[in-house]
Amino acid sequence: MRAASLGGLATPCLVLDLAVFEANLARMAGRAKAAGKALRPHAKAHKSTEIARRQIAAGAVGLSCVTLREAEVMAQAGVPGLLLTSPVVPTAALERLGRLLAEAPDLMVVADHPTNVAQLEQVAAVSGRTLGVLVDIDVGQGRTGVIDAASAVALAKSIEQAPHLRYAGVQAYYGHLQHVPAYADRLAQARTQWDRLGSTLNALREADLPPTVVSGGGTGSSSLDLAIGPFTEIQPGSYLFMDRQYGAVSIDEAEAGFASALGILAHVVSANQPDCAVIDAGLKAMATEAGPADFLDGVPDGATYKFMGDEHGGVVCGGPGQPLQVGDRVLLRPPHCDPTVNLHDLIHVVEGGRPVAAWRIDARGY
Amino acid sequence: MRAASLGGLATPCLVLDLAVFEANLARMAGRAKAAGKALRPHAKAHKSTEIARRQIAAGAVGLSCVTLREAEVMAQAGVPGLLLTSPVVPTAALERLGRLLAEAPDLMVVADHPTNVAQLEQVAAVSGRTLGVLVDIDVGQGRTGVIDAASAVALAKSIEQAPHLRYAGVQAYYGHLQHVPAYADRLAQARTQWDRLGSTLNALREADLPPTVVSGGGTGSSSLDLAIGPFTEIQPGSYLFMDRQYGAVSIDEAEAGFASALGILAHVVSANQPDCAVIDAGLKAMATEAGPADFLDGVPDGATYKFMGDEHGGVVCGGPGQPLQVGDRVLLRPPHCDPTVNLHDLIHVVEGGRPVAAWRIDARGY
Repeated sequence: MRAASLGGLATPCLVLDLAVFEANLARMAGRAKAAGKALRPHAKAHKSTEIARRQIAAGAVGLSCVTLREAEVMAQAGVPGLLLTSPVVPTAALERLGRLLAEAPDLMVVADHPTNVAQLEQVAAVSGRTLGVLVDIDVGQGRTGVIDAASAVALAKSIEQAPHLRYAGVQAYYGHLQHVPAYADRLAQARTQWDRLGSTLNALREADLPPTVVSGGGTGSSSLDLAIGPFTEIQPGSYLFMDRQYGAVSIDEAEAGFASALGILAHVVSANQPDCAVIDAGLKAMATEAGPADFLDGVPDGATYKFMGDEHGGVVCGGPGQPLQVGDRVLLRPPHCDPTVNLHDLIHVVEGGRPVAAWRIDARGY
Repeated sequence: MRAASLGGLATPCLVLDLAVFEANLARMAGRAKAAGKALRPHAKAHKSTEIARRQIAAGAVGLSCVTLREAEVMAQAGVPGLLLTSPVVPTAALERLGRLLAEAPDLMVVADHPTNVAQLEQVAAVSGRTLGVLVDIDVGQGRTGVIDAASAVALAKSIEQAPHLRYAGVQAYYGHLQHVPAYADRLAQARTQWDRLGSTLNALREADLPPTVVSGGGTGSSSLDLAIGPFTEIQPGSYLFMDRQYGAVSIDEAEAGFASALGILAHVVSANQPDCAVIDAGLKAMATEAGPADFLDGVPDGATYKFMGDEHGGVVCGGPGQPLQVGDRVLLRPPHCDPTVNLHDLIHVVEGGRPVAAWRIDARGY
């Protein structure tokens, strides 16, 4: 994408290179198919039913969701195979879960605590449906999940015994491994977690609770999860867009893999300072927790971005003189795609260098 | 506000202590009135027409806005006295500005470059209206604004000579001073900028271009801006809510001043780890560029927050054992209110310990 050709768009805005996006979409789908594993991509990356439909059309078995709103909007759009990847606990959320189950009978959730299993049984009973539940297993991230094999077996048993719950297997997500830069290091760390997970899977099988589904993995670990890991399905999200963070990760052992498809278009709105031009993309236009954006187009080589407030950023070009002028367009690469997409209402789709469509980010918001 | 009494709300969500909010609202309005200066509070902090109406009712002369969307939504709601505080440059934005001017004839904008003045004149001419323009002056922030008195005079002259523009004065905003912790340090740094601004104001007066409006100042500098500074009006926003950052700033020389009115309500969704309980408020529920949130209620003294992904955060209580249980409610104080509010669609209003209303954050989004 060239920033210069994208006139007429209100900025800051998200722009998506459709050709690159479609190549990323097809690449992950093809890899999962070749590995004989299922793909349940994570909707938290895009929060868009338009994109979810394309993922399903490309062979995904369903969509992973982390917020109830994501799942509700996906269900209303007819997206099948929804998995809620974080325990649903608050009373208000459990009420919504019951309504969601009525709309999406193949819905699955995760649980990591007996109290929550009892709550889920009550929700499913009131709905008169059966709710699929995965035992959430901590594989080193230290976040949600049971922390030992005995707890996993006990929880799986309680799910199986609940009349309105269906014990469907396990979830084991290692978010902390996704950004380990080198393939070999990531593989070594994943092997440690696979060993740990393997013991739990064995304990479940020995207790006559063999998991049908073993769900986990993200974009960073996808290559090794598909080739070697103990998963029946993976949940990557960022592979569609890529971002500055994943640009620094060797996702594959050898080949180049996924490419940057998502940009943030901005305009220079002030250029009076000698050392930096000011653009209309600041800390409300992109994620801020993963460091600064970098640039895809429109700035001299070596230019860097700095946050300058809610709606302003600086382009520091170095060198003498200010090469950018008021009205110039620049294209940034978001530091982290998920929380960047979450800040926008639309993704402008670019094909042949021109905006051709705008997809709604319809599952965002609280 | 007590977290325990706020059951029934879907989390994460924003909650506003109405009594504290109203006290903050009245305090700033009263101070401006006592100082004989106008208040044009910044809508970027709340992006809510409901709150804007309350600010107008409390005596504000209008609202400052930084995005066109903020101004458009405010105009549609009948909010008067809108000032766009950043140069409007992109072609698509200028087209929208023309339509906005037709709806909000008392609209003002800022400019810091002759090219932009020519664009604004064209917009106003096409609309058949007169557009008020302030010369934006850099007062040490190094962002937008002209950087010397000669440029200010030249720009003011070009505005005055443009048939459809009205030279209304200047804007001089020092965002970089807002969070200087000690009142005396902030005052010393402000004096340097007032001297600089004073030279420019004198140059404008000598050129027969006396500024009617001198707009600037934020929550952090409000006390000294009202008492001593060269402003005719101030643009504070955060004073309504306060946040962790402003909690560390002595806004006033002596008295306690403004108080925390805004919280983020969250539930513990997992508590299997010995060292941290996991809540459903992560990096999509609050600003991340200003460090972690802290807590208003629901956790033991000394507990700290850590980000654990898009939709998860950790409550680290220290000490032995895990005092929090699945389903417990906690109330966080956002690290930075503006980009936190921007992530939500509603502010739940709490009165007498109970949610009594939900105000829409209707001017958010791109």
